[in-house]
Amino acid sequence: MGRTLKFWGWGYEDEGLDTAATDTLLRTFADAFGIAPAGEIPAPCVDDIALAPPRLTPPGSLTSICTSDPFERILHAFGQSQPDSIRIFARDFAHAPDVVAYPNTEKEIAALFDWAGSQGAALIPYGAGSSVVGGVTSDVSDRYKGTVTVDLSRLDKVLEVDPVSRAALIQGGARGPELEAQLKPHRLTLRHFPQSFEHSTLGGWIATRSGGHFATLYTHIDDLVENITMVTPAGRIVTRRLPGSGAGPSPDRFIMGSEGALGIITEAGVRLQGLPIFKATVGFRFTDFFDAARAVRAVAQAGLYPANVRIVDGVELQANGAADGSFTLMVVSFESADHPVDSWMARAEQCCLDHGAKVDVPWRDNPNAHLQGAVGAWRTAFIRMPYNREQLTPRGIISDTFETAVTWDHFEGFYHAIKEATETTIREVTGQAGAVSCRFSHAYPDGPAPYFAFHAQGRPGAMLQQWQAIKATASDAIIANGGTVTHHHAVGRDHQKWYEMQRPALFGEILGDAKRRLDPKGILNPGVVVR
Amino acid sequence: MGRTLKFWGWGYEDEGLDTAATDTLLRTFADAFGIAPAGEIPAPCVDDIALAPPRLTPPGSLTSICTSDPFERILHAFGQSQPDSIRIFARDFAHAPDVVAYPNTEKEIAALFDWAGSQGAALIPYGAGSSVVGGVTSDVSDRYKGTVTVDLSRLDKVLEVDPVSRAALIQGGARGPELEAQLKPHRLTLRHFPQSFEHSTLGGWIATRSGGHFATLYTHIDDLVENITMVTPAGRIVTRRLPGSGAGPSPDRFIMGSEGALGIITEAGVRLQGLPIFKATVGFRFTDFFDAARAVRAVAQAGLYPANVRIVDGVELQANGAADGSFTLMVVSFESADHPVDSWMARAEQCCLDHGAKVDVPWRDNPNAHLQGAVGAWRTAFIRMPYNREQLTPRGIISDTFETAVTWDHFEGFYHAIKEATETTIREVTGQAGAVSCRFSHAYPDGPAPYFAFHAQGRPGAMLQQWQAIKATASDAIIANGGTVTHHHAVGRDHQKWYEMQRPALFGEILGDAKRRLDPKGILNPGVVVR
Repeated sequence: MGRTLKFWGWGYEDEGLDTAATDTLLRTFADAFGIAPAGEIPAPCVDDIALAPPRLTPPGSLTSICTSDPFERILHAFGQSQPDSIRIFARDFAHAPDVVAYPNTEKEIAALFDWAGSQGAALIPYGAGSSVVGGVTSDVSDRYKGTVTVDLSRLDKVLEVDPVSRAALIQGGARGPELEAQLKPHRLTLRHFPQSFEHSTLGGWIATRSGGHFATLYTHIDDLVENITMVTPAGRIVTRRLPGSGAGPSPDRFIMGSEGALGIITEAGVRLQGLPIFKATVGFRFTDFFDAARAVRAVAQAGLYPANVRIVDGVELQANGAADGSFTLMVVSFESADHPVDSWMARAEQCCLDHGAKVDVPWRDNPNAHLQGAVGAWRTAFIRMPYNREQLTPRGIISDTFETAVTWDHFEGFYHAIKEATETTIREVTGQAGAVSCRFSHAYPDGPAPYFAFHAQGRPGAMLQQWQAIKATASDAIIANGGTVTHHHAVGRDHQKWYEMQRPALFGEILGDAKRRLDPKGILNPGVVVR
Repeated sequence: MGRTLKFWGWGYEDEGLDTAATDTLLRTFADAFGIAPAGEIPAPCVDDIALAPPRLTPPGSLTSICTSDPFERILHAFGQSQPDSIRIFARDFAHAPDVVAYPNTEKEIAALFDWAGSQGAALIPYGAGSSVVGGVTSDVSDRYKGTVTVDLSRLDKVLEVDPVSRAALIQGGARGPELEAQLKPHRLTLRHFPQSFEHSTLGGWIATRSGGHFATLYTHIDDLVENITMVTPAGRIVTRRLPGSGAGPSPDRFIMGSEGALGIITEAGVRLQGLPIFKATVGFRFTDFFDAARAVRAVAQAGLYPANVRIVDGVELQANGAADGSFTLMVVSFESADHPVDSWMARAEQCCLDHGAKVDVPWRDNPNAHLQGAVGAWRTAFIRMPYNREQLTPRGIISDTFETAVTWDHFEGFYHAIKEATETTIREVTGQAGAVSCRFSHAYPDGPAPYFAFHAQGRPGAMLQQWQAIKATASDAIIANGGTVTHHHAVGRDHQKWYEMQRPALFGEILGDAKRRLDPKGILNPGVVVR
């Protein structure tokens, strides 16, 4: 690759916000929310960080795929969550993995399981490290005699393409751009575009039940999987490649969401689509957020299956410099590899106009609609968003997101409860008002997936505790009001407490039994999904 | 209800083929396939059947919901499979349940679990008895000291309707017509129409991963479930009602397909749809079955999501008196509660014409297309089909179906392998050629769900062994050629052997652990899904 990954933030070292973009971001936070920089901690460098000596020494047969190089240990110590970022800037790397392994084969993965098990070490499967919920944070209990993080980036191949069924067999460590580049010559796409796309992997998507960028229908990785190969300490699980089946409980659906606690996903058969040719996008403004939500419901219940049907509230538009905060933006788009989408869009537009939409960017004869007006401004902000945190955390600004799903009948009360609980706790723990915004990331006929963001004035040295208090209140409110603690960010270490509240107790026992069956020494990703 | 169910066949005693329809059916089999009646065993009546005295006596607290009435024991001894039918006409009821229970509440179900467990009895959950795979056949191993069949028909209520989210909370024992009648005043429908619709239940659909009549998108019960309540001997599992979630492996998807081996589904939240207003149907003829299959693939991969996209081969049309066997029929239909479907249908029609389709019944300005030509003839035959068996079995004619799914790249070779294996075994075990036909019940972008039927000249007294040999060959061929042993008929007792070949061994162990956790005495539906 030649480029060095940035261990304190998103992407590569040569990417990020430039000075002007950072200034704009900080000015927006100050002007709109009264949140101002509290100093500025410089980004850490490897030499700043005191690592404990590695407690594990790989056996000779594994030395060629293992390293205890300080940069590798530091790079693999955290994911991309707000608490990860706070700890990174605090140079808090005492828990960094002792060894980072780069297996090339399933056999090497099995050997790593055996070795870690024999050493009493924890083993953390690592796709590309984009977890925002502590899913790869190598901070495990003192019960373990060390930690091995297993980076799957060498399993990056598209192994087979089946153009007839529109399917492919792909290795679990393939990142989004890598797998799409290998599919492109076949004029096919997996069309799964989570915001983490560049730095997340097929295996990671399946393990965490990733949600793609598109708002309806075939966007969740769950629906794009034909079969899975998972290597576990107890052996291999290979499910049968099928377009559909009713033979007993789905083994694929049991592996999906196991977040590295049951095994490592080495290969999957996936469903592909043709490259889209016909596209249309429209932007609407609403003065009332709930009118916009009702328009989303109308479109979601119409059986039109748009690529996108998204609303973004005024606070979120303002926080991202995409608008002045006076309206809610709605974006509807259709795309097809097969047919013009005008009939579909015309009907969706009518659903929106019926609910009070005002056109911001028209769709007819407008192939660049997605780049125009508030639609385009929001799109630009969305692409830039992952780089904000590495500028905000070191300046004492807390800025995080959480997401959920709830049925439409509950939505308005749910929204108010979550927003108020979060705002109240921000005020309590920071001494001043913050900002809480909401957009919809996905829309189902029976409910939306609301995606909240919050921004708060942190206090250097206390930011982790402040964040924990806000996160706990928001998560408590989600559980108390009937939502899911995560719709597509996954459980990780950060949601485990609330996941256990949400999950039927007996199903927790079943997962525990499965863990003991597949991972009898309990080495895999401790503290995540199954304790 | 007032009507008596027919224990030797489909539906109520006052329904069935009339003499003319029976004559036509028999003449078709004789003329087209050389399969002729071998005598005629009269339908059994209760007094014909020697039942062993019941081995179980319910405790006083359960007597009001339990019966050992001979008719009830006989009615609940079998489902609707070909071997069930053969055994019914052979008056083979030695295994009939000792007690049939009709619980009204979850508490009563829990009490039945406790009692059956204390007696060493097997307990068979029974929705409405339409299993075609031995799923409710009360023939369990000698390890059990008796059998209690639990008929869930008293749990038949729609408990809540949520018109905003288009969802409802419905009891597990509600049959199709019962639940649709309760939803209709709300102008909503579950729109799940398996062929067994009249005599199957919501809980049964979920337990068996039922496939609906429609060919694409929201037709499988799996996708229509918001949450589930299941009562197990170890306690209740209540999953959270959500439109979507990524919080760990899905507990709903683990319950779906458990076929009564882990618990009894007492309630489920389900996703509803508006009543369709706009409909269109078109019929095509193809001279080549594989051209028709390619047309299905084109439509399935176009992102149009038709209500139906189905092909029926010449043999199947002929066997059902719907055509002369000289062409393959393709039916495509769209329906919507929201918008006219012309744009959708026009594009689907073009996909079919591109693959050599000739119009049999046109769709434009033709609201009765579904009743016309071969489309209408097939529809009539389809509705009548469940009544054929009770006329064929007693006349020594074997007539059964099996269904599967496979990816498109495999389909042609798969089809030939299954068809030839089945035809060869029919010739071997019956001494003459039979007939094997194929249609598609469902179509996915990555593969079809082929649905085979076979008809063979049975030998009275040997029909069960003949059927077993044919079934075994067909199932072996499906497994060897990469299909699933069942796409929507379920595993039951009849597919268990092949299901275990298809299922990853470690997932089988996980299911076994779950069984021990939820049903520690192993009383629930022994021999099905988990041994």
